[in-house]
Amino acid sequence: MIELDFNNILYAVLGPVHSISDGELNNTIANNAHICAEIQEERQQGKHPWMDLAERGIEDILGLARSKAKRWENFLVLGIGGSALGTRTLLEALKPPFYNLLPAKERNGYPRLFVLDNIDSDETQALFKLINPQKTLFNVVSKSGETTETIASLLITLKLLKKHLGKKYTQNLIVTTDKDNGFLRRLVNKEGYLSFETPKGVEGRYSVLSPVALLPAAFIGIDIKRLLQGASILDQYIQKTAADKNPAYISALINFIFDTQKHKNILVIMPYSVKLKAFAEWFRQLYPESLGKRYNIDNKEVFAGPTVLNALGVTDQHSQIQLYNEGPNNKLIVFIEVEKDKDDMVIPASVKDDSALFLAGHSLHQLMLAEKSATEYALVKSRRPNYTIRLKELSEETIGALLYFWQLNTVYAGKLYRVNPYGQPGVDAGKRATFGLMGRKGFEKEIADISDTLTKDKHWIMRI
Amino acid sequence: MIELDFNNILYAVLGPVHSISDGELNNTIANNAHICAEIQEERQQGKHPWMDLAERGIEDILGLARSKAKRWENFLVLGIGGSALGTRTLLEALKPPFYNLLPAKERNGYPRLFVLDNIDSDETQALFKLINPQKTLFNVVSKSGETTETIASLLITLKLLKKHLGKKYTQNLIVTTDKDNGFLRRLVNKEGYLSFETPKGVEGRYSVLSPVALLPAAFIGIDIKRLLQGASILDQYIQKTAADKNPAYISALINFIFDTQKHKNILVIMPYSVKLKAFAEWFRQLYPESLGKRYNIDNKEVFAGPTVLNALGVTDQHSQIQLYNEGPNNKLIVFIEVEKDKDDMVIPASVKDDSALFLAGHSLHQLMLAEKSATEYALVKSRRPNYTIRLKELSEETIGALLYFWQLNTVYAGKLYRVNPYGQPGVDAGKRATFGLMGRKGFEKEIADISDTLTKDKHWIMRI
Repeated sequence: MIELDFNNILYAVLGPVHSISDGELNNTIANNAHICAEIQEERQQGKHPWMDLAERGIEDILGLARSKAKRWENFLVLGIGGSALGTRTLLEALKPPFYNLLPAKERNGYPRLFVLDNIDSDETQALFKLINPQKTLFNVVSKSGETTETIASLLITLKLLKKHLGKKYTQNLIVTTDKDNGFLRRLVNKEGYLSFETPKGVEGRYSVLSPVALLPAAFIGIDIKRLLQGASILDQYIQKTAADKNPAYISALINFIFDTQKHKNILVIMPYSVKLKAFAEWFRQLYPESLGKRYNIDNKEVFAGPTVLNALGVTDQHSQIQLYNEGPNNKLIVFIEVEKDKDDMVIPASVKDDSALFLAGHSLHQLMLAEKSATEYALVKSRRPNYTIRLKELSEETIGALLYFWQLNTVYAGKLYRVNPYGQPGVDAGKRATFGLMGRKGFEKEIADISDTLTKDKHWIMRI
Repeated sequence: MIELDFNNILYAVLGPVHSISDGELNNTIANNAHICAEIQEERQQGKHPWMDLAERGIEDILGLARSKAKRWENFLVLGIGGSALGTRTLLEALKPPFYNLLPAKERNGYPRLFVLDNIDSDETQALFKLINPQKTLFNVVSKSGETTETIASLLITLKLLKKHLGKKYTQNLIVTTDKDNGFLRRLVNKEGYLSFETPKGVEGRYSVLSPVALLPAAFIGIDIKRLLQGASILDQYIQKTAADKNPAYISALINFIFDTQKHKNILVIMPYSVKLKAFAEWFRQLYPESLGKRYNIDNKEVFAGPTVLNALGVTDQHSQIQLYNEGPNNKLIVFIEVEKDKDDMVIPASVKDDSALFLAGHSLHQLMLAEKSATEYALVKSRRPNYTIRLKELSEETIGALLYFWQLNTVYAGKLYRVNPYGQPGVDAGKRATFGLMGRKGFEKEIADISDTLTKDKHWIMRI
């Protein structure tokens, strides 16, 4: 299902300094192996509830999607960050490109899927003009039920829906939020909207296998059962595998070593598939938000965490590779490759010219894989460490496994960095400041502190 | 038109270590001021031909677009890297979001615009199924006329067009390439396609103000005259401004100082506007591909160049800000803010609840600007340097100015890093390797070297 090729990080391939030797790698694997058992134990204690998502029942989601999905022209998610990126990932990976441009028939009658994950007025205006509110099912997603941006979008939506639908407007809303707490749950209890629960203890960036993303996915006909099966297969494989054969642990360890001991503080994730572009953005939240922490678990100030850079093959060869090959050797590059493409196209011999003829008869996918190998080769020549994750194909199963793999990797990495992979204490100051600036009661102190902090003697302003 | 606020990089605001003092900044500005005059002089010698693009005639483009644009249902660009990102930038910044989903009437009769900048078979299949070839104008763009990916897409396109249109197929093609050299020019000369010239000496990443992006832009009704006027206003302002008042020079200098002397080797570009998302991707090519160089102009090995990370406000506050605030202090963050929004929306008081009511009566754009200030404030609290570029509004003029500003900044930065901001020697090895792997004659040596380099004893492969 998944193959991992770690060879291009080795001393034998790259030479000294920017590499790791077999001996060093084997030692480090052995020395840290205990973290696999620790996490396993913590899981039994309920400390990693996202790990069990693949085993939860999804009959309610499937039942609803089966009976209702095809009634809607649009399914519109209001959510941001972890409430949006999982859904985007599944849409892009498992439905055809340009999905929303396809006529209903080619969507097999399933609705278009939009994700509004910003409060940009241009975008919001354009989207609300584009859709017919009567034919749109709005899915409001927020674990806390208190996300400012999502509430702002919801307030606009409610006004629109009431205007077009009167009292029946509640039928066009589904809320996904915590079972007990928060504004959205209060609203559900008061207004009687249909709702789903975000699983307790599962944060946004670990919630892709919960109703947060499964509900939208099911509504556009993605086989979420197979998605969970893929995750489950990976989970079971890891559980019965020794640490030194555990690829999620080993890749976390490699990422950690190259960041903390080999001066590669940037982790590039570069899939060679347009369908995995959103996946790379999902990962760009998962890893940095989990590992980018000021304090470690011993309460020591560490300012830890790799910076993730997402790129797309082959497109970004024409944008990023100059820097990766010739700039500072401060990156570890992780490629994702898809072995087979069901829908491959042959390049025809339309022009008789040496600049074109060598391509003829090859397929686009062959060309893509050749370019990836060529990039890998050029990077090795420049002594830039990289490794490859190879999916057999793009399917519900392999995507489920891939998502589970990286979440697991993130929790292993948390152990290695000795940081808590959950929580995001570093966004609190900004949230409170927004409340202050928007005039929310109880946040008056923030306004004073903001003007103290930001406006001391603004003399470095230039105008054109 | 543009305002630059550099205050959040100062010692007085941030305290020691991660900042620069007024004195240090003023000294460095004075000490390097000569580069402004140097570049001016080089420009007279014809060494920076892109700088004069805003003054070139565009009557041919305007004439063609005026008479032909509305005849087409789709305008499809085949191009990659610098041949794609400028076009994407103009489309997203200056047309409404979801442009391709709008009915023809709301597009004022202009065609949809697609940019195929990958060789992904899923994407290519889906796109070619989506469009009616007879109603699609294909614009093949490559400065060298030899770009492998673009040629592959063209070969597929030619087969499709000939099948659907027979001999008339040439009417559906416009080629933008070098006047004299390359496969595409040979093809134009042989087949008689309509063509435009890429200006001599202007590389892809500096070509947004040339036919490369202006032709597609004109075909979807963007006022390219005003775009060039915006660039021209900025150009003229800079030409008559002393170095110590030149914001393009000063921002280049700040970026340089923080990368090379303050350990901020990551430059984050974070617009607070969905419409500037593609702009950030354009910049992510421009800066790293120009400055990411192994050798400097004295032929000394330097491995220079900042790594650019693109982010989007407010969305990525829920993905990136945890890392920016609490991770390693290795970033300089550049915000782009838009002062006014023509199409702003008021947040209504749809629900009477303290979690929602404080938002009511404010507009979405106010909320966005408040969140940006709040983020800025939180970063300063964590002593993370950042500065803001503020556009009065999003218009052809301000976008033209912004693009020109950053290209100029890049050339100044080249001087400071002492690297050639043109050329991309680091991508050559990969290109040659691709030729080898695809069996092109004359590249047999590459295959041998690839297998030597990549396949030594592949023992670190794991499978799930």
